Amino acid sequence: MKKGEKTRRRIVERAAGVFNTRGYFGSSMKDLTRETGLEKGGIYNHFVSKEEIALEAFDYAASLMRARFEAALVGRDGSLDRLFAIVDVLGGLVGDPPVPGGCPVLNTAVEADDTHPALKKRAQEAMTGWLRLVGSIVKEGIRNGEIRTGTDPRETASVVVATLEGAVMMSRLCDEPAHMVRAVDHLKEHLKSIASESERSGA
Amino acid sequence: MKKGEKTRRRIVERAAGVFNTRGYFGSSMKDLTRETGLEKGGIYNHFVSKEEIALEAFDYAASLMRARFEAALVGRDGSLDRLFAIVDVLGGLVGDPPVPGGCPVLNTAVEADDTHPALKKRAQEAMTGWLRLVGSIVKEGIRNGEIRTGTDPRETASVVVATLEGAVMMSRLCDEPAHMVRAVDHLKEHLKSIASESERSGA
Repeated sequence: MKKGEKTRRRIVERAAGVFNTRGYFGSSMKDLTRETGLEKGGIYNHFVSKEEIALEAFDYAASLMRARFEAALVGRDGSLDRLFAIVDVLGGLVGDPPVPGGCPVLNTAVEADDTHPALKKRAQEAMTGWLRLVGSIVKEGIRNGEIRTGTDPRETASVVVATLEGAVMMSRLCDEPAHMVRAVDHLKEHLKSIASESERSGA
Repeated sequence: MKKGEKTRRRIVERAAGVFNTRGYFGSSMKDLTRETGLEKGGIYNHFVSKEEIALEAFDYAASLMRARFEAALVGRDGSLDRLFAIVDVLGGLVGDPPVPGGCPVLNTAVEADDTHPALKKRAQEAMTGWLRLVGSIVKEGIRNGEIRTGTDPRETASVVVATLEGAVMMSRLCDEPAHMVRAVDHLKEHLKSIASESERSGA
């Protein structure tokens, strides 16, 4: 990697934590110079605007989440087991976020939904990817008989992601990881309840 | 109400929508003058700072939510019916938020958790109130035999609020109210599953 590329990458990585912690409007160029150790001019050598940095920083944070999902699914073959892996990745957002500040999709969604269409679109795309991932595992599970026929893959996807994202917010707000523990326990029980009889009896 | 009190109240009501839509850091005094129709000096006659306005605006939004919970619970006697009423109030945050911009607790929590301790504290207090409300209905239901012994009131409270708050975020992010519809349906099914046998059979 050339020196310029390395610097650009360092800016994006550090900026991801700044934006995820302070928000887009709450982050100043001063915050970015402090975190990157660069002068303002040094940052503007690589980016035309705070917006350009924020969009790349979001993409970087979203890519870390994708990598976590991929890693968690390696060697997990059963549908229920794969869904549990997804729940555990999202459940880890409280104790071990990919970048400081919690869930980048939640944070960006809440700030950008009324105010910043370009950032909103990135968060939408990441959310759509997560929902499709859950939905596709449920569909596969129905096809191969591990999950009950009649289960709505879109409902399962909405419920899994909503419960865990809400729990991220509550655990951080109340400084109380128990909200996430309860959300994870509840979802695993719920997912067991949509497993087919043969799966539940361990056949 | 004196004219000064009326003006102060109008500032708080309008500011609540501005902060809930644009966030604390994203809202400027210019946004507040535009929304209230007052000059900056006119606003500063009533408040010492943007922070003071934001704190009162949050309290106002939280009070509207409390009023909704109270109204929804009037005449609802059974524990399950009371829990359904709570689910419907939170479910209404997507189509009919108390102030423009969605859920004031969610928005304030996500923005303030790392950046603004005074706002965070207000959102924490509101969240604690909601959790206690759900928990107290579950406890009452266990006492009077409508809800299964062994149900954990804190788990039910965490799960109900987390699922609906996550669904607010997703519905607004994806411009897709279906996420909230699915969350509400799922929770009502879940709540029926914690009702005691006699309740479920309609006895």
